[in-house]
Amino acid sequence: MKPYVLGIDIGGTNTVFGIVDARGNVIASSSIKTGKHANFDDYLEDLYTEATRLIEANDATDKIQGIGIGAPNANYYTGKIENAVNLPWPNLDLADIVSEKFGIPVAITNDANAAALGEMTYGVARGLKDFIMITLGTGIGSGIVVNGQMVYGHDGLAGELGHIIIKRNNGRLCGCGRTGCLEAYCSATGVARTAREFLEARSEPSLLRNLPIESITSKDVYDAAMNGDKLAKDIFEYTGTILGESFADMMAFSSPQAFILFGGLAKSGELLLRPLREAMEKNMLNCYKGKAKVLLSELKEADAAVLGASALGWEAK
Amino acid sequence: MKPYVLGIDIGGTNTVFGIVDARGNVIASSSIKTGKHANFDDYLEDLYTEATRLIEANDATDKIQGIGIGAPNANYYTGKIENAVNLPWPNLDLADIVSEKFGIPVAITNDANAAALGEMTYGVARGLKDFIMITLGTGIGSGIVVNGQMVYGHDGLAGELGHIIIKRNNGRLCGCGRTGCLEAYCSATGVARTAREFLEARSEPSLLRNLPIESITSKDVYDAAMNGDKLAKDIFEYTGTILGESFADMMAFSSPQAFILFGGLAKSGELLLRPLREAMEKNMLNCYKGKAKVLLSELKEADAAVLGASALGWEAK
Repeated sequence: MKPYVLGIDIGGTNTVFGIVDARGNVIASSSIKTGKHANFDDYLEDLYTEATRLIEANDATDKIQGIGIGAPNANYYTGKIENAVNLPWPNLDLADIVSEKFGIPVAITNDANAAALGEMTYGVARGLKDFIMITLGTGIGSGIVVNGQMVYGHDGLAGELGHIIIKRNNGRLCGCGRTGCLEAYCSATGVARTAREFLEARSEPSLLRNLPIESITSKDVYDAAMNGDKLAKDIFEYTGTILGESFADMMAFSSPQAFILFGGLAKSGELLLRPLREAMEKNMLNCYKGKAKVLLSELKEADAAVLGASALGWEAK
Repeated sequence: MKPYVLGIDIGGTNTVFGIVDARGNVIASSSIKTGKHANFDDYLEDLYTEATRLIEANDATDKIQGIGIGAPNANYYTGKIENAVNLPWPNLDLADIVSEKFGIPVAITNDANAAALGEMTYGVARGLKDFIMITLGTGIGSGIVVNGQMVYGHDGLAGELGHIIIKRNNGRLCGCGRTGCLEAYCSATGVARTAREFLEARSEPSLLRNLPIESITSKDVYDAAMNGDKLAKDIFEYTGTILGESFADMMAFSSPQAFILFGGLAKSGELLLRPLREAMEKNMLNCYKGKAKVLLSELKEADAAVLGASALGWEAK
């Protein structure tokens, strides 16, 4: 076993990569722009050059055990990226192509699964064998771990809990084209939508009324709530309750020890967590009550994506 | 490895047990009454006597590798039965007690998980690594298999998909004490409740109006539908649609290759399956469409419970 892995997190805007040791220390990291490379070959050349520079500068040549990549719609089983709307390239045999370029084994998975692996390998989920990672960002991603193993499903596409239907009739339109998905309510975007709905439906004063309604973000709602704004607090109550109700249903699937939250919204703290925990416990089947924890990611945000991706590098063959 | 296992299915009324070989042949089977033994020690003595008689009569003494038991609320991890409302005994260390009595290793799990193991070992799920077993009886049970392994959850209580909430507001009261559970709509009991609701809410003629409304069963609804009764067919449409919508959500969890149906209602055939498949496909996230099959159990009903339980016998240590 070599001492390091290379973790690569491919996002729509930036690609961040870093050299990580077995204890989860990010030895060094760097990044390139993803979006500016309309042609994948150019992107790969740029990534290879920069990553090689980083590896050489840190005396890590021939010391990389594997490369782990987290990317939107990346499929662990096929090694492909398919239908990734936020990336500028067509479908790709990503794992094979990167592996050939670097001469190092590569494993890939989607960003939320990478986050779950990162928590399990280096973070708050160390020692947990059954947990569900929920990433609350622009959308909602999820990574499910059962008996110590990532749940990939027969096609590598399991764990899309942001697209469980939580409102069957007259639900909000979701980015996936359907209506009523969890993501349409409890992502950062969902919180902003709730703000607009509440502001239109209610007449009470709110700090949020000082902002142009179309540009309100979940951060604005957080700031208002922290300043004591009643309507903003109600928005978190609403969001946390829906999330908690959905967690209660997830319990009936895999009975996890913990739900782990990551992403911008997770930083809302008790504003979100209190109603979430209350709704989860209240809506759970009796046999599960009091058993599952709701935890926040312990990984530094700057390192989390690289650590998550790198965790997969140890598995690459 | 010895050539046989003993499968024991403990139901509220009867306990059925059989000697099973590695190919899933039930060499011989028998049964005793569960309910008449208010005292567990008497029950165990009766079971031991009858099972030993069966084993001796089939020249299987010292040829039993393990004993597998399927029973309500049986916990694979702890070996205990707890809070089993349909059994006459208090909480029990079932696995240890039976193992000591027989001098053979014992493993236990709940009935729906046993059914899933039976299908995977001997039935329609042979070769499948990712599937969900749904038993449609008086209640709804489920057994989830991910990457070839049963999902037990951190506490052994995973896989209660009958208690996922499919109607969040004003849902029917479920036996679990909550409202809106899948089981309250799509079990045999749920179908009978739908019949009563439909008969009261609608005024059209129906063969079901010839029956005393409180005693209508799902079998009555099936018979009426097979005789062309429009209202009865609508009840299956309603039931299949709800089941299909819930399967679409389950896809987002573990992306199984197949859903396998077992139990009385599963025998309704296309009356149930057509609306089920249609609703499942219609409500699925795009990336899952067209991938998951809905299959019926291939195990003979008389043998299924014993086979399911026996499959666990091979794992007993």
